[in-house]
Amino acid sequence: MGSTERIAQVAKRVAKWARAGHHMVVVPSAMSGETNRLLALAKELSPPQHTDALARELDALAATGEQASSALLAIALQAEGLPSVSYAGWQVPIRTNSAYTKARIESIDDAKVRADLAAGKVVIVTGFQGVDEAGNITTLGRGGSDTSAVAVAAAMKAAECLIYTDVDGVYTTDPRVVPQARRLHTVSFEEMLEMASMGSKVLQIRSVEFAGKYKVPLRVLSSFTPWDIDIHEEAKSGTLITFEEDEQMEQAVVSGIAFNRDEAKISILSVPDKPGIAYHILGAVADANIEVDVIIQNISKDGKTDFSFTVHRNDYNRAIALLKEKVLPALGTDHIEGSTQICKVSIVGIGMRSHVGIAAKMFGALSQEGINIQMISTSEIKTSVVLDEKYMELAVRALHKAFDLDQSAAI
Amino acid sequence: MGSTERIAQVAKRVAKWARAGHHMVVVPSAMSGETNRLLALAKELSPPQHTDALARELDALAATGEQASSALLAIALQAEGLPSVSYAGWQVPIRTNSAYTKARIESIDDAKVRADLAAGKVVIVTGFQGVDEAGNITTLGRGGSDTSAVAVAAAMKAAECLIYTDVDGVYTTDPRVVPQARRLHTVSFEEMLEMASMGSKVLQIRSVEFAGKYKVPLRVLSSFTPWDIDIHEEAKSGTLITFEEDEQMEQAVVSGIAFNRDEAKISILSVPDKPGIAYHILGAVADANIEVDVIIQNISKDGKTDFSFTVHRNDYNRAIALLKEKVLPALGTDHIEGSTQICKVSIVGIGMRSHVGIAAKMFGALSQEGINIQMISTSEIKTSVVLDEKYMELAVRALHKAFDLDQSAAI
Repeated sequence: MGSTERIAQVAKRVAKWARAGHHMVVVPSAMSGETNRLLALAKELSPPQHTDALARELDALAATGEQASSALLAIALQAEGLPSVSYAGWQVPIRTNSAYTKARIESIDDAKVRADLAAGKVVIVTGFQGVDEAGNITTLGRGGSDTSAVAVAAAMKAAECLIYTDVDGVYTTDPRVVPQARRLHTVSFEEMLEMASMGSKVLQIRSVEFAGKYKVPLRVLSSFTPWDIDIHEEAKSGTLITFEEDEQMEQAVVSGIAFNRDEAKISILSVPDKPGIAYHILGAVADANIEVDVIIQNISKDGKTDFSFTVHRNDYNRAIALLKEKVLPALGTDHIEGSTQICKVSIVGIGMRSHVGIAAKMFGALSQEGINIQMISTSEIKTSVVLDEKYMELAVRALHKAFDLDQSAAI
Repeated sequence: MGSTERIAQVAKRVAKWARAGHHMVVVPSAMSGETNRLLALAKELSPPQHTDALARELDALAATGEQASSALLAIALQAEGLPSVSYAGWQVPIRTNSAYTKARIESIDDAKVRADLAAGKVVIVTGFQGVDEAGNITTLGRGGSDTSAVAVAAAMKAAECLIYTDVDGVYTTDPRVVPQARRLHTVSFEEMLEMASMGSKVLQIRSVEFAGKYKVPLRVLSSFTPWDIDIHEEAKSGTLITFEEDEQMEQAVVSGIAFNRDEAKISILSVPDKPGIAYHILGAVADANIEVDVIIQNISKDGKTDFSFTVHRNDYNRAIALLKEKVLPALGTDHIEGSTQICKVSIVGIGMRSHVGIAAKMFGALSQEGINIQMISTSEIKTSVVLDEKYMELAVRALHKAFDLDQSAAI
């Protein structure tokens, strides 16, 4: 919510749904820029060390942004003639653990909210925040409003959780790379997880996990749709994330193409193939707080194997130095290589589980374009390849076409 | 607190006191302009009618300003190397009644605060706000941070409550009118009440009443004093508001001259002098939410009396119209007159209780300047006169001199 004008429009949209007979709980985010403004003030004043005491105050500070926008939305709804009431996280209460700045929701008491809904009120629950057992204010971390919304929907057993965001749904791939990209009417929870973690940054991944855990039907739709659009049209807009197997019967085999060029690859060659090697390598990397994505180890030859993985590009130099210093000597090899000039492209589809030959079709399409595959990694519903980054757009477009995802194709 | 720079300075000042061995609870106000900013946003969105539901949301909104500044101060203290923790009103909790936007404090639980002080922390309690029995956020109204500070000091049985404000103490009168005005080292609670309500707007009057009720020694001092001033000097700066009779033994008979020109006078003449007349007149005025200050009714002649009172200038026309329409007909008189061209000047002093001739001296001093007195009203520690407003400054200066309050006089 960017301005009072935007808040007033949100109120009109909520009023439209309420007048159509829906009982609603609304979870607003902070006004745009507000969280950054508050944290910038804190940064000017902060001590050099990050302590738990500091994190506690950062949460108390950041939580005010959503508290303010929630009260403002309640006021705007009253101006629309709708009874409304806002609750801060601690008032519901939304109980979390005590992990300041990245707390996890443990439980939600629905009594107050239900009573207010029964009394005909629109209930506004302040997103992004909660309260721990000891009564300290906590926040859920960036994008936490989505998670709050899903958690509240789960607690209320809502028919659907609508997430209004700055995109109008989940696409088969990024329309900036493939103009023919299509909006998916539905996408499975698992596919959404794979898409989200791969760069289709539509929803915070935790909110999707949460929705999956509690089977909350989740609809991603655009907050830029005019508020006075026909309600039946709005109810079908965006993308519905589903959790029931049978709902996906009609689904295409491949739902979308995900990609990124944030990663770098590292290979350690001629590693003795004995128990504990993977742990020896990746344990050291994890200890340095470097996250690893794709991991590949092929079968060994002559008692030696090659071990490859990808890390974020920003961590590449640190990882190489660390491995040379702490890992390679013990492995009896100094053969390490890597590159930051790579990209990762994945096909994602729940239908892949029951269809053979999908990966082969992927490799074929890439080969037709003359693209060499450097690494391959597969899961049940995703096949990823690591390529030279210069091929990224070409690969994405080729795969989008090969799997009949272009707009012209039948839905 | 105006900016992060100001907050950092407050932190340095608090750190100075803490390092000198004081256990401290700090009650910050919002950053300057923040409360107005938030309420302006609300105003843009508000419904035309002011309801309790709206007031509830306005409080939830306004309370965020102090919550943010409290967290920021806690962070700045940690940067100074001092352990610190901030509590919103509901976390302490500070219990209030449910009168949104003007709630009254009912109780304060000191357990958490005491435990933290014992653990060596500086405790920051968010001012201006509390929580009602049902768990709704309430605010105390403008200037409520002062009241919060006094209430917390009372609950903690603090040795002294220091209120840092934009003036450096209580003066014998307004230095803009009388350049010789002196800062009072001490002033009695009752005098402060009379001064505050008369225009020496140093402290919110409710905070002074609260301090009186719980006998909290209250020191008003300047927030513009450099933070690194010698601590013993700072401890003696400003004005101490006292509550013990014997502390005022040395006090001058008259402590200060208060004045304002916000009022208008209204007289109803030839009113039948019978029971219920004052109620008949003032009841109607009160019903219209018009506040009355001075009320004078002299003895009657021939069964008729004159009834005079003052109201705020803004209410003058409304009061006259109301009286003409609803009150005068039943009184059998149409003789009403009034003026907005008046001022009220008062001498205030707890010593007046035990000294005779003070009022006479006042009237003499005014007479010497040729100033005619229109109305006189007295209380135990105050004598007020209503004068033509053009004489205000002249009267204040004459009285300041007559009662030996000028800077050159002995303290």
